Amino acid sequence: MKKLKINRRKFITNTVKSAGALTLLGGGIPVVAGKSAQKKSYTIQDVINLVLKEGNLSVLKETVDTIKTGNPETLVTGIVTTMFPTISVIKEAIRLNANFIIAHEPSFYNHSDRSDWVKNNTVLNEKKLLLEKHKIAIWRFHDYCHALKPDAVSYGFAKKANWLPYFKTGEVLLTIPKTTLQELVAHLKSSLEISHVRVIGDLKQSCERIALLPGAWGGQLQVSTAESEMPDVLIVGESPEWETVEYIRDARILGRKIALIVLGHAVSEEPGMEWFTDWFQPKISDIKITHIASNDPFTWI
Amino acid sequence: MKKLKINRRKFITNTVKSAGALTLLGGGIPVVAGKSAQKKSYTIQDVINLVLKEGNLSVLKETVDTIKTGNPETLVTGIVTTMFPTISVIKEAIRLNANFIIAHEPSFYNHSDRSDWVKNNTVLNEKKLLLEKHKIAIWRFHDYCHALKPDAVSYGFAKKANWLPYFKTGEVLLTIPKTTLQELVAHLKSSLEISHVRVIGDLKQSCERIALLPGAWGGQLQVSTAESEMPDVLIVGESPEWETVEYIRDARILGRKIALIVLGHAVSEEPGMEWFTDWFQPKISDIKITHIASNDPFTWI
Repeated sequence: MKKLKINRRKFITNTVKSAGALTLLGGGIPVVAGKSAQKKSYTIQDVINLVLKEGNLSVLKETVDTIKTGNPETLVTGIVTTMFPTISVIKEAIRLNANFIIAHEPSFYNHSDRSDWVKNNTVLNEKKLLLEKHKIAIWRFHDYCHALKPDAVSYGFAKKANWLPYFKTGEVLLTIPKTTLQELVAHLKSSLEISHVRVIGDLKQSCERIALLPGAWGGQLQVSTAESEMPDVLIVGESPEWETVEYIRDARILGRKIALIVLGHAVSEEPGMEWFTDWFQPKISDIKITHIASNDPFTWI
Repeated sequence: MKKLKINRRKFITNTVKSAGALTLLGGGIPVVAGKSAQKKSYTIQDVINLVLKEGNLSVLKETVDTIKTGNPETLVTGIVTTMFPTISVIKEAIRLNANFIIAHEPSFYNHSDRSDWVKNNTVLNEKKLLLEKHKIAIWRFHDYCHALKPDAVSYGFAKKANWLPYFKTGEVLLTIPKTTLQELVAHLKSSLEISHVRVIGDLKQSCERIALLPGAWGGQLQVSTAESEMPDVLIVGESPEWETVEYIRDARILGRKIALIVLGHAVSEEPGMEWFTDWFQPKISDIKITHIASNDPFTWI
């Protein structure tokens, strides 16, 4: 099945190349192999509907998961999945002739993607122009992504960290074989390909009960989880420093056995979008999906 | 004058020691040297009033700068200033027999210091018990601190970084002698005694126009400042990663000459509380003020 899929794609690429149709592709006109090859075409909206259908997801009335740019009726030439639809990711999508980006996080630097969040935002305006010029559609896949059962981000994280035997759908707590905080950090850095993390805790402390909260749950949910689950370590993407960070610092000085690992937002949730890609590709085999990691934005000095 | 102050304090300490009155001191009963030494006593409220009077500060109707624990009528035995009133800082205040902590940031892990922000927060409850047991008062000094002219945090930062010649009251932009981003980072780490920072930018880029936003201004103000001031580099304490961080990353890929330095919340504003201490001590020479840095909470791995 997989082989057939690859062959189909190769055939189409060759056809397009020989027809000199790359300009058309860049303009967002889809490649449809014709009825003879039985290649199905999808609009942006068709793809979204398929995600919801295959994921058994009910339509949310209030959600940030809206189409940020592009036309829902446009035919899809290829899909890119990512955490943040950065300019780099958009340029790579253009290069790949993929006119649809499914991104977990905002496109325009604020949760609701309001264009007027900062007035006359020249960077946002230039980003929009780039997207319009290349007719790139972006759909945010955040609330639905977390509504999947299991939550795609937690599951993808657990899978990449080789923790699936300890993962339970709907639970943030994983009981892993006992390890030290230092070994745990090394394992996360290695398995998730993360260069640097920030930690609060005694590196010699044993860790068994892991509260897994990738992304930015906010201090209130992070601290609530620390209180209710009593984990040995809380693993988060990011956290307001005056909230969870100070809570953990105080808890430790009071003698609690709890540590905090701050992985970084993008790298902590990227495994979720990777896993979503693997999950969705077989359900839409006529469209190529490429996962592009948006990566750690920082240089650590 | 300074010598006299030290001698007075030494005299009181010796008297107390010989009277075996340390328990009383721990209980928050103030040391008053008596009318013969003309040592003035202050209640918590007196100290707050003096800060407002000396700072020419109008009383704010809506502010987070409230007394978080303790009684405004309690006589002050000593003052500790800090960024975060961590358990470590509280323990050190107890050791110093200082029953009043003036802290820039929250005591209870949320901006408005609500006790029910997380229900049955056992860490918060234990912190409160410790404060009550030792009759330690905490006053948050945040909104008033930033309302001083100049803003104590920005001024203290500029002073510690040896940037006072370039600092203008009420302006976030400083034009410093041209340097590279790499040299700038090294200078900040060395002058502010910071071990690690996170950076977005080309380390060889020249920096002259510095937007100085210590603490957590939030993405909207950080991005607005980047747009309006067009700095070469934005220096912040912390920032939501999906807001300012992604804005800067995109801006750079679009060719803008802008960098971001994320110092960490506590270490970025601590120089402000240090400077406030130096400013306030001569105005209340009968009470010792000790600045205790709350420090970077993280181990960087």
